[in-house]
Amino acid sequence: MSPMPSQSDPLRLGIAGLGTVGIGVVKIIQREAALLAARAGRDVVVTAVSARDAGKKRGADLSAYAWELDPVALAKRDDVDVFIEVMGGHEGAAKDATEAALALGKHVVTANKALLAHHGQALAELAEKNGAALRFEAAVAGGIPVIKTLTEGLAGNRIQRVMGVMNGTCNYILTRMQSAGLPYETVFEEARQLGYLEADPNLDVGGIDAGHKLSILASIAFGTRVSFDAVELEGIGNVSIDDINLADDMGYHIKLLGVAQMTGRGLEQRMTPCLVPAESPLGQLQGGTNMVVLEGDAVGQIVMRGAGAGEGPTASAVLGDVIDIARGFRLPVFGIPASQLVQPVAALSATPARYYLRAKLQDKPGALAKVATCLGEAGISIDQMRQINQPDTDDGDAIVLIVTHKAAPADIQHALAQFAATGVLVETPAAIRIEEV
Amino acid sequence: MSPMPSQSDPLRLGIAGLGTVGIGVVKIIQREAALLAARAGRDVVVTAVSARDAGKKRGADLSAYAWELDPVALAKRDDVDVFIEVMGGHEGAAKDATEAALALGKHVVTANKALLAHHGQALAELAEKNGAALRFEAAVAGGIPVIKTLTEGLAGNRIQRVMGVMNGTCNYILTRMQSAGLPYETVFEEARQLGYLEADPNLDVGGIDAGHKLSILASIAFGTRVSFDAVELEGIGNVSIDDINLADDMGYHIKLLGVAQMTGRGLEQRMTPCLVPAESPLGQLQGGTNMVVLEGDAVGQIVMRGAGAGEGPTASAVLGDVIDIARGFRLPVFGIPASQLVQPVAALSATPARYYLRAKLQDKPGALAKVATCLGEAGISIDQMRQINQPDTDDGDAIVLIVTHKAAPADIQHALAQFAATGVLVETPAAIRIEEV
Repeated sequence: MSPMPSQSDPLRLGIAGLGTVGIGVVKIIQREAALLAARAGRDVVVTAVSARDAGKKRGADLSAYAWELDPVALAKRDDVDVFIEVMGGHEGAAKDATEAALALGKHVVTANKALLAHHGQALAELAEKNGAALRFEAAVAGGIPVIKTLTEGLAGNRIQRVMGVMNGTCNYILTRMQSAGLPYETVFEEARQLGYLEADPNLDVGGIDAGHKLSILASIAFGTRVSFDAVELEGIGNVSIDDINLADDMGYHIKLLGVAQMTGRGLEQRMTPCLVPAESPLGQLQGGTNMVVLEGDAVGQIVMRGAGAGEGPTASAVLGDVIDIARGFRLPVFGIPASQLVQPVAALSATPARYYLRAKLQDKPGALAKVATCLGEAGISIDQMRQINQPDTDDGDAIVLIVTHKAAPADIQHALAQFAATGVLVETPAAIRIEEV
Repeated sequence: MSPMPSQSDPLRLGIAGLGTVGIGVVKIIQREAALLAARAGRDVVVTAVSARDAGKKRGADLSAYAWELDPVALAKRDDVDVFIEVMGGHEGAAKDATEAALALGKHVVTANKALLAHHGQALAELAEKNGAALRFEAAVAGGIPVIKTLTEGLAGNRIQRVMGVMNGTCNYILTRMQSAGLPYETVFEEARQLGYLEADPNLDVGGIDAGHKLSILASIAFGTRVSFDAVELEGIGNVSIDDINLADDMGYHIKLLGVAQMTGRGLEQRMTPCLVPAESPLGQLQGGTNMVVLEGDAVGQIVMRGAGAGEGPTASAVLGDVIDIARGFRLPVFGIPASQLVQPVAALSATPARYYLRAKLQDKPGALAKVATCLGEAGISIDQMRQINQPDTDDGDAIVLIVTHKAAPADIQHALAQFAATGVLVETPAAIRIEEV
C-alpha cells in the first residue's frame, strides 16, 4: 500500500469501467486539468483503468494509463488513491473491487445504486473502519447533487419527507403515453428500440432501479440502515392510458414517484405510480428528467431537477465526489457514522392519502350503489364520483371513476376486496394514490 | 488567540445579530444537539452572542451564553471558533467584525450578501491568508444550497450560464399583480404593509439585493472577482399590469430574472425584468419562492427551488456551513483561490434575444408603418405584431405589440431611439427581453 498522499500531491484515480460514464470522466479530466486543479487545490490525474476489452475504441486517448483486466487488481494498485467504480452490478467484480479498495483505505467513488442498496451498510462500515471515503453522488438522480444536499447542505434539518422521480425511462414512458395518447405496450416498445431500457427492463419499469435510489436517500435522510427490501415496489406496467387521460382531466399527472417518510409506526418507503397535481413541479416534469423533493423542518421544501442519466451528468456527479476527496473532505458515508445508523422498523404504507379509483362495472341496476356501499363500509368518504360514457363500445359496461377523501391504504385495500365480492366488477379496478406534493 | 482546536473538540460559535436568523440558529442548536453532533462528528455549541439590546425578549433562552455588546469583541473572543454574522449592513460593524475574525484565523459564516458583493475579494484574500473559512450559503437564495452546488457538486463543470429569481418580494409582487390583476403601486403598498419590503424598498424592487446575489454566483461560476458594479440593474417599478397581461396571453410570465454568462466579449451580468415561458420552471414560480438555474457543460441544466428567506430556511443555510466547518471542510471562498480570481471584463449585455415591445401610438395614418420601418432599419425582424383594441378608451391611440426575432440589445435600443424620432409615440415604449430558459 502506498504511503498516505499529502494534500498537495496529485490525486490519482483508477477507473474501473470504460463505458460512457468512465470515458466521460476521462474526457473531462483531460480537457479541464487546470480548472479542476484550481478547484481541488491539487492535480487530479488518471493513472490506471480497467475494462474487459483493451482493444475496443472508446473515444478517448487512454494510452498514458496503465491497464488492468481485473478491477480488483486496479483497486489494489499503489498508484491509485481513488477507485472509481463505474462498471455496475451489485455482486461480483464491482463488489469485490470496491471492498478491496476500501480494505486498503483507498477512497471509492461509485455510480452503483444496486451495490449501495444491497450492501450499503457493510461497505460504509468497511470504509469508516479504514478511514476511506465512499461516495456515490452519481448513483442517485444522475447529475443532481442530491446526496450532497442531504448530507451537507441540509445537515441542520430534521428531514421529514423525501420524494423523487428518479427513473428517466419510466417518466419518459408515462409522459410519452400522455402526449401521444399511446398505450403502455407501444411506448415500452419504442423505449426499448431507443435503447432507453436496461437489459432487464424490469429494473426500470418494475421500479427496482428507482427503488434502489430511494432506499439510499432514505438512509441518509433518516439516519437508518439502507433497507431496500422494505421498499414497497410497484412498477408502471399496469398504468393504463385510460388512467392517464382521466387523471389529466381532473388536473393530475401520473408519475412513478418515490416517497420516504418516518412515521410513528416506522419508516415508510414506497416507489409506486402516484397522481400528483399537474401544476406542481413534479407534475410538470417531462421526459427523462429527474426531480427530487426534500422536506426539512427548518428549510421547508427544496426541489431539485436535472438530468438523471447520460455521460455528462453522471461524469459531473463522479467528478464532484472526486474533487471533494481531493480537497480532503471526509464525512460519514450516510451522513452519520455507520455504527449509529439504526435498523429501521419497516412500516407498510399507512399514511392516509386521497385515492383515485377506476372500476369497470357490469351494466346492472344497483352496481354503482354496491361499489359506493363498499367504500362507506370501509369508512372511506367519496370526494368525486362519476360515470364515464364509452360511446365507442356497446358492451354496456360502465366505467366509474372515484376520487376519495383521505383514507388509509389498508382501508382502500379492504374496500377493493369488497368490490370483488360484489360480483359487479368486469375487471380488476385501478387504485392509485394521490400524493400531496 | 486560542490554540487551534482539534477536530474532536466542540466547535464554538459566536453569533452576532439576534434577529430571526440568529435566533433560528440558536433554537436549532439547542433542539438538535445530538443530531448535529452525529452529523458533524463533534459537538456544536454556542458560547457567546452579540446584539445591541441585551434586555429584549427573543424567544430563545440565551442565559448560558456570554454577551458582547460589540460584535468586534465577540469576533475576537478566545472561546469563539466560528463567528456567525447575521447582523447585515455592508459597512460598519458587520464588516469590522468579519475582518477581525478572519484576521485571527477564525472562521466566518455570514448571511450578508451586500458585504460579499462589495468586499468579497478583500475578505476572501484575508480569509485565505489566515487559513480561515468564509462561508455564505445563507447570503444567496436563502435555504437553497446553491453556493455548495456550484462550488462543490458541479465542480467538474465549466459553468455556462447562471440564472435566478432571487428576490422573493419582487416575485411576490409580480405574481400577485398577475393573479389579482392589480397595478404595481397597489401591490407594492400591500407588500409594504405585509412587512415584505426592506427599510429601503429599492433594495428589493430596484433589484439591488438580487443583484448582490447574482454577482456572488457569477464570481463562483466563472472564476472572476465579484463585480457587483458591473451588474446591469433594472428593477420592477416599470413593469405594468398591461405588460403582465399581454405577456400572459402569449404564454409568458414576467420575472425579475438574474442572468450571468461569460461571452467572448466578457462577463454579462444582468438583473432585469424578463419574459420567460409560462410553462418553464422559472415561469411557474409563484410568490416568494426562489429558483436558481445552473447550466454546466457536463451536467446540463440543474434547477433548484426553495424558500429564499425566513427564519428556518436561512438558519438551515447557516447550519449547513457550520457543519461543513465542524467536519473540517476547507475550500477556497469563491471555489478557486482568491489570488487566481480574474478581474472580469464587464460586458454590456450583447447576447441576442427575442424582445417583447409595447408602444402606444397616435392614431395617425402610417404610424404603425413608421414603427415597423424603424425595426427594419435596425436590422430587427418581427416575429409577431398586433394592434390591441382598447374599447374602454376613446382617445384614439393604438397599442401595438411586437415580438421580435433574436436581436442584439444595442439594436433594440437603437430602434427604440428611432421610434422616438418618428413623433408617433404617445409614451415611452416598453421593451422586455425574452430569456430562453
